[in-house]
Amino acid sequence: MLSAEIIAIGSELLTPERSDTNSLWLTQKLNDIGIEVKLKTIVGDDEARLEETIRDAVKRSDIVITTGGLGPTEDDLTRQVSARALNKTLEYHNDLEVHLRARFRAWGREMPEINKRQAYIIEGADILPNPNGSAVGMYLSVDGKHIAIFPGPPREMQPMFENHVFDRLKVAAGDVIVKRRVLKISGMGESAVDEAIAPIYVTYPDVQTSILFNKSEVEAHLWLRSEDSIQADATLEEIAQKIVGKLGTAVFSIQGESMEEVVGRLLKKRGETLSVAESCTGGLIGSRLTDVPGSSAYFIEGVVSYSNTAKMRTLNVPEATLQEFGAVSAETAAAMAEGMRDAAKTDHSISVTGIAGPDGGSDEKPVGTVFVGYANGGRSKTMKIVLPGDRYLIRWRASQAALDYLRRQLLKAT
Amino acid sequence: MLSAEIIAIGSELLTPERSDTNSLWLTQKLNDIGIEVKLKTIVGDDEARLEETIRDAVKRSDIVITTGGLGPTEDDLTRQVSARALNKTLEYHNDLEVHLRARFRAWGREMPEINKRQAYIIEGADILPNPNGSAVGMYLSVDGKHIAIFPGPPREMQPMFENHVFDRLKVAAGDVIVKRRVLKISGMGESAVDEAIAPIYVTYPDVQTSILFNKSEVEAHLWLRSEDSIQADATLEEIAQKIVGKLGTAVFSIQGESMEEVVGRLLKKRGETLSVAESCTGGLIGSRLTDVPGSSAYFIEGVVSYSNTAKMRTLNVPEATLQEFGAVSAETAAAMAEGMRDAAKTDHSISVTGIAGPDGGSDEKPVGTVFVGYANGGRSKTMKIVLPGDRYLIRWRASQAALDYLRRQLLKAT
Repeated sequence: MLSAEIIAIGSELLTPERSDTNSLWLTQKLNDIGIEVKLKTIVGDDEARLEETIRDAVKRSDIVITTGGLGPTEDDLTRQVSARALNKTLEYHNDLEVHLRARFRAWGREMPEINKRQAYIIEGADILPNPNGSAVGMYLSVDGKHIAIFPGPPREMQPMFENHVFDRLKVAAGDVIVKRRVLKISGMGESAVDEAIAPIYVTYPDVQTSILFNKSEVEAHLWLRSEDSIQADATLEEIAQKIVGKLGTAVFSIQGESMEEVVGRLLKKRGETLSVAESCTGGLIGSRLTDVPGSSAYFIEGVVSYSNTAKMRTLNVPEATLQEFGAVSAETAAAMAEGMRDAAKTDHSISVTGIAGPDGGSDEKPVGTVFVGYANGGRSKTMKIVLPGDRYLIRWRASQAALDYLRRQLLKAT
Repeated sequence: MLSAEIIAIGSELLTPERSDTNSLWLTQKLNDIGIEVKLKTIVGDDEARLEETIRDAVKRSDIVITTGGLGPTEDDLTRQVSARALNKTLEYHNDLEVHLRARFRAWGREMPEINKRQAYIIEGADILPNPNGSAVGMYLSVDGKHIAIFPGPPREMQPMFENHVFDRLKVAAGDVIVKRRVLKISGMGESAVDEAIAPIYVTYPDVQTSILFNKSEVEAHLWLRSEDSIQADATLEEIAQKIVGKLGTAVFSIQGESMEEVVGRLLKKRGETLSVAESCTGGLIGSRLTDVPGSSAYFIEGVVSYSNTAKMRTLNVPEATLQEFGAVSAETAAAMAEGMRDAAKTDHSISVTGIAGPDGGSDEKPVGTVFVGYANGGRSKTMKIVLPGDRYLIRWRASQAALDYLRRQLLKAT
């Protein structure tokens, strides 16, 4: 199996605010054709370290991919430093300069002389055209190693990789493919999932399994290298079905979908509609649901009843309920869901009220206390949970719990 | 100035799903005491590459920090490989084993024998206690180089760094400190901002400036190394004020705050209230506003009127308006904001209606067409924008545009 290294170049990637994301996208593409990423480096606009990084990478790994540092300014060192690291020279390409000048004129500007630097290419390299920017990429094969050099912006890099490099690497990687499946599981911890499904996955020694916890759900990642794509898919499907057989409805996706996609698919299939009444999540559930293209087919309305006034006026929550039980209570959650259902006349309504913190907690109802409500035509029900984490995580987990509660009601009703 | 390298260890960090985030937090801490991060490496559970990475890092840089790979399993290589890379041996510490056994017993379990591996420490290293996990860290000073070895989980690594390593590095770094400021600018492009403010920042050669575009805003990052903290702050404040003088209200923050924090602060200061009527953003604006602790002081209610029915029923948008101008129109945006204001009786209301795509666009109203509305006690007004990007970015940018529209109304009203 071929090994790859990815080098992200640019001092801005070494600040506390920025991180390299190109490598995640590239890793997915490389893994899909059976190439493993063995190392990633993030290096600044620093000649010595960049040269050493490229030299070492080419020595160690079969494929080296760099992103960034191809701009026209003094800081952009990738061209000359990678040439030096590969013991090659840079060659001037007049046609590239002509093309660059034409691009600038098309934007109504004269090309600054500094951009001429972008017409220099490492000797022997293939030029990778860049329809979305002024920096072309380069591809070389040296002593059986593959080197691909890209600009940093993802919308420039990605089409260049897909159109001009992916096929070459696929040929180099041979017929091995990698198939992946991501199962998502709600309402269980990482170790409980592992304990339950280990007896299944250990019987498939060719399949790699990893169990990860991701904000509000456990993910089981399965992957498999094979030369037989159909057989690999069948194996992964078999494991997925065994896991579903073991864990039941706790498995909310066997194809890596998000909770909002799963809920949306269920509603769409049934031709039913949904409305949402939110308090502590503040619109997050609506935002997640409508993040899914086509969600207008089932999502009708949301109300963010952040104040008690809004709960009473828009959702018809009785003042007595708020006074007797408080805004964060099962009774209020039920009244919110019912009020939302009655107003929007949807088949289903969900509600959330809780204490996201950092303030507002009490001994009886600590920060993280959340009530989730559900109402349909005939009835309503609620669930209490106490969620760990900071404000961001409590809100996210409350939104996930509400969507999952709806999912389980929909499955029961089938 | 001292240079640092950060090495993140673990094969899971080389998958498409995971990225190293420890280094961002560490970079912030290091920058604060004037230490520059020159290189970051992400390496898997791979003995040869890990050993080479550590050896090279110690050769090149003054400070080397590793995270991950200190667990008890076979995959956890950091202890033995870093010892070898530093030409040191591992020493068994009986007191650590005793302590580990006691921890496990406190959890009601016997220590698995495999965890004994966590009682081995590189010779000459100081032990960094880990109150949140079973893997202790290590700190060594070798030939003037500083090496700190941490477990991977952020909630273990961060207190260990702060309590046991930060002060040592601060002493090593001397009195140089780094001060940073992030200014955020809306409604202008990256190059327009740069063109406008370059004449300001070039007159401060000691201050590093970088201009970045971040989803929906331009950020100007200023930073400065100095031995005089007060003077450095004064210099950055002076530049910030000059930039505000040049760009005016386009600068929405001179302290790196988010748009929702800025809007929240303005409302809070004025003791005024807000409600939000959303269509294409689906709750995202409400979610962002209520992400700010204390937002219940000014955020009263939100309505996600995703369907026309909801626009008419809950926001009182006239059916004739929807029929004549369409749901995505200035007229509907105005009616949504007015209807929300009248229902919630808030001082201010904002509304958004638009086409987030991928479907639903037309020649007249392509995907990305968004109308933003604003209403207060006496009047309403609207703005049309056409936003580039995919569904995610269009929704995000629409939410930002609406909040910024509100901000500009609030500033005018002052």
